[in-house]
Amino acid sequence: MFSRLCHLSTIVLLSLSAVIAARYPSFGTIQTTKSAGVLNAVINNTFSQINLFDQHVMADLGNLIEELQANDTDVRVVVFSSGNKDFFFPHIDSNSLLPGYESPLPQFDPGNPKLAFPVALLWNITQLPQATIAVIEGRVRGIGNEFIMSCDMRFASTSPSVQFAQIETSLGRTTGAGGAMYLAHEIGRSRAFEYVLSSKNADAVTAAQIGWINQAFDNSTELHDYVQKLAARIALFPSQGIIATKKGINAVSRPPIDAIIQLAQNAYAELTQTPIGRNLTNKWLQVTNNQSLSAVELNYGDGEDIIELLP
Amino acid sequence: MFSRLCHLSTIVLLSLSAVIAARYPSFGTIQTTKSAGVLNAVINNTFSQINLFDQHVMADLGNLIEELQANDTDVRVVVFSSGNKDFFFPHIDSNSLLPGYESPLPQFDPGNPKLAFPVALLWNITQLPQATIAVIEGRVRGIGNEFIMSCDMRFASTSPSVQFAQIETSLGRTTGAGGAMYLAHEIGRSRAFEYVLSSKNADAVTAAQIGWINQAFDNSTELHDYVQKLAARIALFPSQGIIATKKGINAVSRPPIDAIIQLAQNAYAELTQTPIGRNLTNKWLQVTNNQSLSAVELNYGDGEDIIELLP
Amino acid sequence: MFSRLCHLSTIVLLSLSAVIAARYPSFGTIQTTKSAGVLNAVINNTFSQINLFDQHVMADLGNLIEELQANDTDVRVVVFSSGNKDFFFPHIDSNSLLPGYESPLPQFDPGNPKLAFPVALLWNITQLPQATIAVIEGRVRGIGNEFIMSCDMRFASTSPSVQFAQIETSLGRTTGAGGAMYLAHEIGRSRAFEYVLSSKNADAVTAAQIGWINQAFDNSTELHDYVQKLAARIALFPSQGIIATKKGINAVSRPPIDAIIQLAQNAYAELTQTPIGRNLTNKWLQVTNNQSLSAVELNYGDGEDIIELLP
Repeated sequence: MFSRLCHLSTIVLLSLSAVIAARYPSFGTIQTTKSAGVLNAVINNTFSQINLFDQHVMADLGNLIEELQANDTDVRVVVFSSGNKDFFFPHIDSNSLLPGYESPLPQFDPGNPKLAFPVALLWNITQLPQATIAVIEGRVRGIGNEFIMSCDMRFASTSPSVQFAQIETSLGRTTGAGGAMYLAHEIGRSRAFEYVLSSKNADAVTAAQIGWINQAFDNSTELHDYVQKLAARIALFPSQGIIATKKGINAVSRPPIDAIIQLAQNAYAELTQTPIGRNLTNKWLQVTNNQSLSAVELNYGDGEDIIELLP
Repeated sequence: MFSRLCHLSTIVLLSLSAVIAARYPSFGTIQTTKSAGVLNAVINNTFSQINLFDQHVMADLGNLIEELQANDTDVRVVVFSSGNKDFFFPHIDSNSLLPGYESPLPQFDPGNPKLAFPVALLWNITQLPQATIAVIEGRVRGIGNEFIMSCDMRFASTSPSVQFAQIETSLGRTTGAGGAMYLAHEIGRSRAFEYVLSSKNADAVTAAQIGWINQAFDNSTELHDYVQKLAARIALFPSQGIIATKKGINAVSRPPIDAIIQLAQNAYAELTQTPIGRNLTNKWLQVTNNQSLSAVELNYGDGEDIIELLP
Repeated sequence: MFSRLCHLSTIVLLSLSAVIAARYPSFGTIQTTKSAGVLNAVINNTFSQINLFDQHVMADLGNLIEELQANDTDVRVVVFSSGNKDFFFPHIDSNSLLPGYESPLPQFDPGNPKLAFPVALLWNITQLPQATIAVIEGRVRGIGNEFIMSCDMRFASTSPSVQFAQIETSLGRTTGAGGAMYLAHEIGRSRAFEYVLSSKNADAVTAAQIGWINQAFDNSTELHDYVQKLAARIALFPSQGIIATKKGINAVSRPPIDAIIQLAQNAYAELTQTPIGRNLTNKWLQVTNNQSLSAVELNYGDGEDIIELLP
């Protein structure tokens, strides 16, 4: 708690915040501090008990990404972490799949009208001029895992609250922003099939072993120390090399945008609206008590008892 | 032995078997049982001491694949295992490379005339609407290893009889169905070069460590328990998500079909018919005592003494 | 020392050396011995204290590669090692980036005028008709690491003098011959980002764990024994299979040549000539005492103290 207060006391605005008007409404779900070329962004969605990846987070992320796209001299590394130690990001807000759902956000990315807004957020992260690092405490599932896969690097603590999963197959869908495709590159084809088709959890030790994350640390202090040191080191280097190196690695290891649009985004859109898909969305909202701090949200991906509630 | 009897006693026909006439002659080399969306297929080629991947197995596999292609509601997971605990699949029948060899099977796939029949079998497995799992006891070499690489997932026991190898380079050929290419994705470029160029064996522990297989288990019971639990879990989920997820992962991690045709299938066809290739096929048939339960079949890929018999 | 003498006493010329006139001037930086289809090539740049990848090494490599391209029957495996146990290859000669630098070598590859000469050397290694193995003792950084990534296989000792790094980002550049792209395939996207963006060292144990190299050995004797046995085994097999297998694996795991030209070679050329790039080249030549046996050359990539000398 004390360290949270410290965090808040050092919050500063990005230098550009004053001059560029934010494109989307602001909800205060992302707190940023900046020092020596490193921007720390702590995500804490106070509209949700479980740090839901909802319209509030998406609007704030959209604004942050626009600032970062324009600022490659002042910020050379971005570190994303979670203010909620039980949940990094559990998944997308399933209410957004219901008819009549209202949002202040556009359906598609203004910069790339073929990309649905949430998909574009993650795609745009992969091509920021900054190095991006996810520091993971708490569960990452669904688009939460796709978010960390879209960061250049990812590190986690071995706390039992850290669990990684792509849960879409269990809901009759597929990973809508390409999570399965990123995983196939990182953990191999056959382990991607195992985890994504079964929608089961990987803990941090296993995740580090198979390449899902860069490394796992025994406690939160070691985790943050390692990442801050790494971030500070990269931030010493000129932006021009960071940008060029990201382009090279992206060219050979990022899923092609056309594959993401057709086989992830469009497949997801279609499957969530079949009778099977609609039925599972409704069941999901019931068994999670509308995505609140419920047994299902805490343990989904673990036991058979939980998974059998659903399909 | 008792468990084998149990297996046989619960054999049922696929529901569609009764209505679709099989395209190819049936030889009874694959025994299937079905329960709660999972089809267990035990391969036991009684025409061979070493579970040879020959025309009998290929005909039965061809029929099974056609049934599975048409049945994505009743069967959502397929588990392949071997009835011969010394050999999962040792390799293709080398007699098929000799002039005058006769077979009831077409040379090319009726559905895709650019694909040689054996190559098409494996390619078609990669795009079945079901999740596919290989449970490996016994040796997998040559097209045997290409078979398990074409399954979505693969698990093995650490029994010394489990050995993985692509042995084609030692015979002056290359992997005809793309085994080297699948391996390059799973174990990396440099380890694929090491194993495929040297034609040497990997044991199950090493294979799990480097990503050749998903996981290795200390004994047969643990292996089968794990796989049956995993299969049952995936089978809970709707086909629509399984199918879409497979398409996504295939799009970014499966070797392109053109590369398989030109650099695997066609290269194999050419190299087996050079003077060097023909000479090695003849020597192979001699030193293996026409692919019977011989020292070479048991130990090929291990010691230098064995490998030096050949080239 | 004794084993070095033995090496020298058994030096023989490649059989073709006598008949083909070398295209480039010869500097004697590569000593070759040949036996039973295996060519051992020991790189010892006597013009440099640190085995610099300079014009002397490049000329000798260029000649050796031309011989190997023409000789796929006599030599089936090439093993590269270093005669300097502190440095395999530290990096390219940064003097070549200065205005007015003179070299007897052409700027572009005669066989492929789109490829800069050093980039072509490495690319041509990937498509030699022989299997290629790097035996690593001493530091590999920058183009040194790109050299070993261009070999089919790589093995190292766990000596503290073995360190792997792509240091270009710290110098405001990117990896000019595609090193970051090769790494993304071998160690995954996120670990490639970590190592390349931070320009930090990986030791041999870590490198083997994450797939940067095939395997690490506790001492030099075990390392060389393993590689010589592996090389001798591959050399038993006909060239036709080695060549075809290399084509297949290259097709799916080697970075595309267009990506290397645009995002590695051309990006490198551009970034080294910006004001930032020129400034860092000059600083680099100063802090390394013009690339001599200096603290920076020995320890770059390790401590923060060293890295902070520079940008």
